[in-house]
Amino acid sequence: MSGVNGAYLDNASATPVRKQVLDAMLPYFREHFANPSNVYDIGSKMKQVVEEQRGKVAHLLNAKSEEIIFTSSGAEANNMAIKGVTFARQKKGNHLIVSSIEHHSVLNSARFLERLDYEVTFLPVDEYGRIDPARLSKAIRPETILVSIMHANNEIGTIQPIPELAAICKESGIIFHTDGVASVGNTRVDVAELGVDLLSLSGPALGAPKGIGALYFRKGTRLMPLIHGGIQENGRRAGTENIPGIVGLGKAAEIVSQELPETQNHCRKLRDRLVAGILGRVEKVTYTGHPQRRLPGHASFCFEAIEGEALVFMLAQAGIYTNTGSACASKALKTSPVLGAIGIRADLAQGSTVFTLNSHTTEEEIDYVLDKLPPMVDRLRALSPIWGKEIPEYQEDVCT
Amino acid sequence: MSGVNGAYLDNASATPVRKQVLDAMLPYFREHFANPSNVYDIGSKMKQVVEEQRGKVAHLLNAKSEEIIFTSSGAEANNMAIKGVTFARQKKGNHLIVSSIEHHSVLNSARFLERLDYEVTFLPVDEYGRIDPARLSKAIRPETILVSIMHANNEIGTIQPIPELAAICKESGIIFHTDGVASVGNTRVDVAELGVDLLSLSGPALGAPKGIGALYFRKGTRLMPLIHGGIQENGRRAGTENIPGIVGLGKAAEIVSQELPETQNHCRKLRDRLVAGILGRVEKVTYTGHPQRRLPGHASFCFEAIEGEALVFMLAQAGIYTNTGSACASKALKTSPVLGAIGIRADLAQGSTVFTLNSHTTEEEIDYVLDKLPPMVDRLRALSPIWGKEIPEYQEDVCT
Repeated sequence: MSGVNGAYLDNASATPVRKQVLDAMLPYFREHFANPSNVYDIGSKMKQVVEEQRGKVAHLLNAKSEEIIFTSSGAEANNMAIKGVTFARQKKGNHLIVSSIEHHSVLNSARFLERLDYEVTFLPVDEYGRIDPARLSKAIRPETILVSIMHANNEIGTIQPIPELAAICKESGIIFHTDGVASVGNTRVDVAELGVDLLSLSGPALGAPKGIGALYFRKGTRLMPLIHGGIQENGRRAGTENIPGIVGLGKAAEIVSQELPETQNHCRKLRDRLVAGILGRVEKVTYTGHPQRRLPGHASFCFEAIEGEALVFMLAQAGIYTNTGSACASKALKTSPVLGAIGIRADLAQGSTVFTLNSHTTEEEIDYVLDKLPPMVDRLRALSPIWGKEIPEYQEDVCT
Repeated sequence: MSGVNGAYLDNASATPVRKQVLDAMLPYFREHFANPSNVYDIGSKMKQVVEEQRGKVAHLLNAKSEEIIFTSSGAEANNMAIKGVTFARQKKGNHLIVSSIEHHSVLNSARFLERLDYEVTFLPVDEYGRIDPARLSKAIRPETILVSIMHANNEIGTIQPIPELAAICKESGIIFHTDGVASVGNTRVDVAELGVDLLSLSGPALGAPKGIGALYFRKGTRLMPLIHGGIQENGRRAGTENIPGIVGLGKAAEIVSQELPETQNHCRKLRDRLVAGILGRVEKVTYTGHPQRRLPGHASFCFEAIEGEALVFMLAQAGIYTNTGSACASKALKTSPVLGAIGIRADLAQGSTVFTLNSHTTEEEIDYVLDKLPPMVDRLRALSPIWGKEIPEYQEDVCT
């Protein structure tokens, strides 16, 4: 019997701010509070602090300091990339390509641009959620100005072949953005190796607080601000700098830079234990996403004849926190478009359950899950009207 | 001789987070860290926390809870209002009216829309920086969809006749937005009395941390998101909620709701002492903005034959922190467009110095300033090539 009575395995949704990060932030709420735009000493000191943090984030990504823009979230960074590049290049063309499994902040930015008469191609993915580079090549038109394909998918963990995809765009003079919100902090992200022009990241994914994110943009990439106004962030993002948040992100980036190789090994080992345990103890379960080319700390499943949300609730009662791509109560979605895109049957997609680990996850937590989960699945299936029955090819999902 | 050796009178630029505010925030970094979008207990508890704070901000403004959207800054709120209303009403018309002394986040949002083929009228102001309601009426066209006129100006402190201006717009079915960044926290702001459809505010102005702001929008006002994506903020602003920031803003709003009448009296008394002292001890100085209809804690001057930035530097050496509308080093502006708009000569505008007080400002600080400032003005004037000379009507400002 393990010594724990809970497991927090929803780190992709939220994670506590690291203690060192909060400690680094604290002096910037009340003691060092000046506005970096001010010309006097205590203001320019704050400007220096911001620039130091920019350097730390740049270092994590193997970028240059001046290629980092601080934002309020990964979602803002994605919006800024998609809209900012499109508006800046509006004279060059009116066509965008995004993958069909992007985060909503990319998909809905693209849909907004459609309303402004831009054209968008939503590129399909294979059964693992990967974009075929040949397919991207075929989708490119003379008027294509931007391609956005996420580095790793938050729901199925799959990592895209970004270097190949970015190279195709580079050849055609098309700007390439990747959403790194799910990857930065969890796997190695080197913008030079990836060959991307822009990359979004979220602070909380690194152990920084909510309310801070960043956008990498390769020097020379033209970008219209999303938030117009003053000259902060070199004129690219207006509004007084969120100094405590920026200091938090800088510190988190510094820690991640040091710990990442160890974190990855740790997560991979525990993730593999979790996956093997679930697949060994539960029947009729599909491991979604790519089996190898995926985030080290990411395990996602679809349990047959189960509502993922019900399982998430039941797990939470045992202190186990997980996520589902198919939540009714969250109102976001009826069924997961990501799972639909990789060809998962609608009824099976309902059983989506996602586990995301981080450096603080323990073997005891994993074993606790492996102990608690299988009987819960059995219980839910015993209540299910479809368990053990032949499922027709198309099953409408019903959310009430 | 006063017992202090400094004075922080740049509260409009930045102000320390209130201690009670930081204390309220602290548990939300590490202890209560869950994502409000999650369906399980610790997630929905966070959703409840967010909604409680929304209620507190609404209460401060005499609004309904569901009329408040949390943003990352006042600048973001302004961008969201200007672009969000314009895009949502694009079928109704293509004309906007903003005052010529708006904050850059309003002006540059309007200029961005001009690039997308919207038409913008930049409305002139009188010598006090006030908009004449008759002038607004004349500027309205059948295709006008939005008017944005700030509640109070950050540089000259003038308060606009918002109820009259908003009423004119209401009659014509035009949405009216006001930038309340300089006013909320410093003077009474009641959205029902003002009659506005939207109002932006900034957290730091209330003693909340940097990185949080809010937009009030009257129920039923159509608004396109600025940050597209998930369903946070009722689908109006995507990205994981900045819980610690939101808790900070909620707490700050609660405190301001209680303390505002006292704060206003306190600031007005000290501001009047400062103004009388400066006008009494320094010759050739212009008190800018409206003498009565202005923010209680706001005093702004133009000192003849002085560079405001030099004075700000010199004051900072004596521990006195102030601001200037005409800063070269801040790179934002060569000369202040606000001072130009109220008809201040370019050479005089160079001498702009702004003092912003808050509830923590003391009489000792004011007296310290009145002791230190006059000899500094004398010293700078002794070095000035233009002091005591006839100034030609037009003097080009030179920033190197």
